[in-house]
Amino acid sequence: MDQITIKEVAKLCGVGVSTVSRAINNHPDINDATKRMVMETIRKYNYVPNNSARNLKRADSNTIAVLIKGITNPFFADMIQVFEREITRQKYSFVLQHVEEFEDEVDTALLLEKEKRLKGIVFLGGISNRTEEKLSFLTVPYVISTVESGVGEETATVAVDNEKESQKMVEYLISCGHEKIAFLAAQKNDASIGMLRHRGYRMALKKGGLEYDEGLVMWTKEGCPTYSLENGYALARELLESGKEFTCIYALSDIMAIGACKALFDAGKRVPEDYSVAGFDGLELAGYYEPSITTICQPRREMAEATIRLLFDLIEQKPVNTRQIFEARLQQGNSTRPLSAAAR
Amino acid sequence: MDQITIKEVAKLCGVGVSTVSRAINNHPDINDATKRMVMETIRKYNYVPNNSARNLKRADSNTIAVLIKGITNPFFADMIQVFEREITRQKYSFVLQHVEEFEDEVDTALLLEKEKRLKGIVFLGGISNRTEEKLSFLTVPYVISTVESGVGEETATVAVDNEKESQKMVEYLISCGHEKIAFLAAQKNDASIGMLRHRGYRMALKKGGLEYDEGLVMWTKEGCPTYSLENGYALARELLESGKEFTCIYALSDIMAIGACKALFDAGKRVPEDYSVAGFDGLELAGYYEPSITTICQPRREMAEATIRLLFDLIEQKPVNTRQIFEARLQQGNSTRPLSAAAR
Repeated sequence: MDQITIKEVAKLCGVGVSTVSRAINNHPDINDATKRMVMETIRKYNYVPNNSARNLKRADSNTIAVLIKGITNPFFADMIQVFEREITRQKYSFVLQHVEEFEDEVDTALLLEKEKRLKGIVFLGGISNRTEEKLSFLTVPYVISTVESGVGEETATVAVDNEKESQKMVEYLISCGHEKIAFLAAQKNDASIGMLRHRGYRMALKKGGLEYDEGLVMWTKEGCPTYSLENGYALARELLESGKEFTCIYALSDIMAIGACKALFDAGKRVPEDYSVAGFDGLELAGYYEPSITTICQPRREMAEATIRLLFDLIEQKPVNTRQIFEARLQQGNSTRPLSAAAR
Repeated sequence: MDQITIKEVAKLCGVGVSTVSRAINNHPDINDATKRMVMETIRKYNYVPNNSARNLKRADSNTIAVLIKGITNPFFADMIQVFEREITRQKYSFVLQHVEEFEDEVDTALLLEKEKRLKGIVFLGGISNRTEEKLSFLTVPYVISTVESGVGEETATVAVDNEKESQKMVEYLISCGHEKIAFLAAQKNDASIGMLRHRGYRMALKKGGLEYDEGLVMWTKEGCPTYSLENGYALARELLESGKEFTCIYALSDIMAIGACKALFDAGKRVPEDYSVAGFDGLELAGYYEPSITTICQPRREMAEATIRLLFDLIEQKPVNTRQIFEARLQQGNSTRPLSAAAR
């Protein structure tokens, strides 16, 4: 690239290199006329300062793309920071691509592949079933992160066992004496996280000898963003209005649990005195809400680190464990309480 | 591109086109052996199904990049959805690029410009002063969104008047009878949002005839992410531990206000009975917190729409109003209350 150097800029302007540098860095110790002259020369000859030049080289470097399903989900924020740090450390460029709930992730990935420098892909938040078959079109390595895909053992996956962890939470609620546990669920046709956590809920009831009552399962309506405060609020209100008896709400996610708490407060109820509320994910916010939310903590940072390590190992064709399932931890907050025998 | 068609795939496999389609779409009505054969042929000849092919064309279309400062900020989530919708509607591709707090946005933008198809840039969350000078290196139109830049009238900007709106909030708190209003601030050297809102705080005190007390201003420590729950919590705790007298906390952002509430609760205090707490931004979460947070609502969606419209007008070289300042709205929550005369 025949690019002009800072020395040539200085020569053209009849000033020293340090003056050019001062002009670029907006240093106070330079007069306006000189600064203007330098900046005009820079523009005219298309000089790119060092700092940028260094980064521009990165444009030629290999790229890792992270496709994120639902950017509004605070669950992913920490993970993205880990990805960025590790990807940069390995001298790769980092591209974050947002995928809408209704969009086809693999189509987006194929599009990114057209960029020749793409060396690997992370599907953060999983992929929808309907696109699983299309994964075979991808020519670069990829890792599906935070959701166990149903694609098969050979698909690189990092996640917690969503069904098992969900069951753990409901078993805990049952051990607190709750028998009428409502579940704020995903859309009925959800075949990802929503389905797995619902299965765990059913399993725990079965194991606890409790009947599964379809009337206590509040499904997300079509077109409503599942993992939202608004949805948690709407489903809890619908539950209250149904007149169904319950002592506890288990929500699919912490965000929905917080929405549910607010619906209870607005109806003049207390948490946990009148109703216990539990969530899933272990968001930082769960600890800051009042009352703090009882939840399942996913080890997000560890999962993010494992995801990116797995991807690099695949790129370098090292032998890998393609299916990495992490343990989650039940974190007791103040939003749930043991039910006294009298109240049952 | 000499790409194989679905008809050719069908011919190679000795099956009908509909069978190939069933294989691709993972239809139950096809036997496994046939499906495997079709999928292998597809892979071998590098056939890309229609749906993807359609999207791949988009890879040749023009691109708008949104550079987002602090992806963890829920304030930007709604705005991104508007950007994506409008950019796609105008038949442009949408690239979301994450910029760390310490990174240089203009360097990142220059890097993106190397991609020839880039037609415009949105700097979401503003840009730091030190990079303002470098804006002149950019050759494509850009809009600075949500922060009034100090660059000058000719720089395309969409924002609220952060100083004025901050002043509005503090005037309201003073009108409630509060005289000792602590401020949870950004880093002391912040020259963006943090400086503007701090100025508004000082202006309101001055206008209300109250003294500015440096001991009531809690500055964010270096290296601590400003707009975080953790930071709000830490600053409020530091304030409590300082022993300084105050009746109200005004936080730079809603997220920090929520962190501050939790610090008060953990110290056995009530909100608003013992202390009033106010924020800024108008996050959805502010309404779901208990108590709901008194805040300044920025019209995020309208600002996002104006940002993208302004960018397209610049691209099409239409005459524009480069400096678009929106009105924000004070939203009273349950986290603040009028101070009785006796308590003052």
